[in-house]
Amino acid sequence: MPVSNSPIDQDRLWSDLMALAAHTDPDKPWTRRSFTPRFLDGRAFLAQRFRDAGLTVRIDAAGNLIGRREGRVPGAKAITIGSHSDSVPSGGRFDGPAGVLAGLEVARALFDRGIVLDHAFEVIDFLAEEPSEYGLSCVGSRGMAGALGPNELAMTGPDGETLGAAIARVGGAPERLGEAIRDDIAAYLELHIEQGTVLESQKLDGGIVTAIVGITRLEIVFEGEAAHAGTVGMRSRRDASLAAASAVLAVRDVATALLDRGEGYVVATTGIVTVSPGAANVVPGEARIVVDARAETKALCELLVAGIESRFRAIAAETGVSVARFAVLSRNDPSTCDPHLRETLADSAAALGAGTTVMASGAGHDAAFVSRIAPAAMLFIPCREGRSHCPEEWSEPAEVAAGTAVLFEAVTRLDRTLATP
Amino acid sequence: MPVSNSPIDQDRLWSDLMALAAHTDPDKPWTRRSFTPRFLDGRAFLAQRFRDAGLTVRIDAAGNLIGRREGRVPGAKAITIGSHSDSVPSGGRFDGPAGVLAGLEVARALFDRGIVLDHAFEVIDFLAEEPSEYGLSCVGSRGMAGALGPNELAMTGPDGETLGAAIARVGGAPERLGEAIRDDIAAYLELHIEQGTVLESQKLDGGIVTAIVGITRLEIVFEGEAAHAGTVGMRSRRDASLAAASAVLAVRDVATALLDRGEGYVVATTGIVTVSPGAANVVPGEARIVVDARAETKALCELLVAGIESRFRAIAAETGVSVARFAVLSRNDPSTCDPHLRETLADSAAALGAGTTVMASGAGHDAAFVSRIAPAAMLFIPCREGRSHCPEEWSEPAEVAAGTAVLFEAVTRLDRTLATP
Repeated sequence: MPVSNSPIDQDRLWSDLMALAAHTDPDKPWTRRSFTPRFLDGRAFLAQRFRDAGLTVRIDAAGNLIGRREGRVPGAKAITIGSHSDSVPSGGRFDGPAGVLAGLEVARALFDRGIVLDHAFEVIDFLAEEPSEYGLSCVGSRGMAGALGPNELAMTGPDGETLGAAIARVGGAPERLGEAIRDDIAAYLELHIEQGTVLESQKLDGGIVTAIVGITRLEIVFEGEAAHAGTVGMRSRRDASLAAASAVLAVRDVATALLDRGEGYVVATTGIVTVSPGAANVVPGEARIVVDARAETKALCELLVAGIESRFRAIAAETGVSVARFAVLSRNDPSTCDPHLRETLADSAAALGAGTTVMASGAGHDAAFVSRIAPAAMLFIPCREGRSHCPEEWSEPAEVAAGTAVLFEAVTRLDRTLATP
Repeated sequence: MPVSNSPIDQDRLWSDLMALAAHTDPDKPWTRRSFTPRFLDGRAFLAQRFRDAGLTVRIDAAGNLIGRREGRVPGAKAITIGSHSDSVPSGGRFDGPAGVLAGLEVARALFDRGIVLDHAFEVIDFLAEEPSEYGLSCVGSRGMAGALGPNELAMTGPDGETLGAAIARVGGAPERLGEAIRDDIAAYLELHIEQGTVLESQKLDGGIVTAIVGITRLEIVFEGEAAHAGTVGMRSRRDASLAAASAVLAVRDVATALLDRGEGYVVATTGIVTVSPGAANVVPGEARIVVDARAETKALCELLVAGIESRFRAIAAETGVSVARFAVLSRNDPSTCDPHLRETLADSAAALGAGTTVMASGAGHDAAFVSRIAPAAMLFIPCREGRSHCPEEWSEPAEVAAGTAVLFEAVTRLDRTLATP
């Protein structure tokens, strides 16, 4: 890239990206946490930009900000582009906003060229994609997919406010959540930074996402016996730290062995490891590990989790400790991207001279929930050193613009290929 | 056992042990933390019992409670028996008190039988053997050995009180600490529960301690790179948790290999293991381990620490992480028990029909500091399941009495064999 004859105004797009980023907690850029006044400032900015682009703006019952332009064919489903404007604490300027503003720029490029689609067109800023203070991520896209129930709405955040009350506070209507569930979306496209190094290292412009990994969170607690670090001999111990150490290595080994079968993307991580009581002179009596296990297909997810559990139980037996707890904390199946949308993205990129590859998404995205109710696909753009969720997160202006140009091309192609009434 | 013709009044000894134990924080037995009003209550009880046994009571400049009876030979050094009356939080009734009350019972048994030794005889309740709120253990025995300096006295505890002020508060004289340093001790004996299972499993009455292990505390911080648990592939990671896991296993392996050389007691423990940032969906960028490494001889201590450090650095290199910190937090050399005292304990036990073995002490004790200024030795007695520092800590009345009888026999023998002016 740069792509040829781009309809995208790179400077306008970049300027908006930086303007939205400026809505940050000033002492820790870049922070725009969902449900905060700062977040609402950012949304006010977005809503005004949506209106400036000729879009009709509303907030749906799940708290999603939606800009819409009707199509030429009455009753035709909508072609949509979305992502999220909230960030993690001390996060970046691209994870989320790049996708929302790409959608806005496509709307403007259509408008500038006087193009009115047969289908309606929407730009969606999903509410609270990042894990929020209420303990849930992808709040808005869950709502749109009908995956937001009373249990979720009852979760509580700062000062005991329920998630339901928080959704109402930002303009949603938790008592009418059913209205947020959509059956009128013809296509959902999401542009997002890769958060990895595949595109950068291969000097590619885009990644056509095959699937968004399934994520299983496992918790295991090994129980041995706390003992005096001096008086209890090496072979008389039931040391939970040894079981935990073997388990951490086993998680890596199971994941890499499965990855090496070449059947799809697999990663597994032991991000939480604690040993108790945690004193230098006490042999640990208990150890807890939380495993994050991800894979591209349901079959791989199942093999990964079963392999890890099996190794954990064997390690407990070998180490002479017991498994005091083994729990699946959460489990989400992989989401497959729609083949027609993927093909359209690939063809669009090729037509513009953009180099792409296919890849799984190791991270969860709003597209995973939207895919439950509509055809969905994602386009990754390169980011520097794979850094994300940190202030150093970065994509070049030309990289964001090139991906947006691919979306524009894909939208116009989909408008022709997707059915209308 | 029971030992034959014991001069020890088992019921009296046991009754005092339980009476001292009753001076506990009522909501969490058994707790008598050094420097607290509860501790001073216990000491008042002890001081009265010392006086009842015909001992002259004083508190030395280091805050040790000492009961003394003069010997027949003017200027003869003292034969001493001691331990400590303070406990860890929610600790036991034997670790410490059994040794102090054994000394008291020996004094009473001598008195009952009208025996006056050539040497002076002392019972010592050392101040604050357990790690105190001031961050130091073995406060009183350090003071007696001249190992309590301005840095230690300046350490602070609850409400910012200095250790020096706390010593003064319990009756010591930190401004005249030199007076606590002794050169007039002919022998120091300490009875203590084993805190392990060797004696119980071998059905023995006593363990003659060869040496008190040297203890080295090591800290290592591995620094990798925090990364997204989904988007960064298994082979692109610098995962500090993997280095930590390998390190935990290496500590065990180095210690057991050294132990298997048969050159002495060796244990090593990873009681503190932390990984950061400690979120399920983040590959850990940092991991910290604190190692407690103990061995019976200085040569073994050095081999153990060198072996661990070497493995740690190799693991960092293999795992692709760096060693952000490697520190020796503390290092204490092993303390060898006096051969003549050991032999006397063994002969005394044999004469009474008590079964003993020789063993290293894996735990630190006041005897380690006293051994710097006087011949010192220890006698371990059995305890149930090796449990200690917990409410379940237990020795049978007959076990405490049998060990005390051995001390009595040893004291009378030492009175004959140790030189007098």
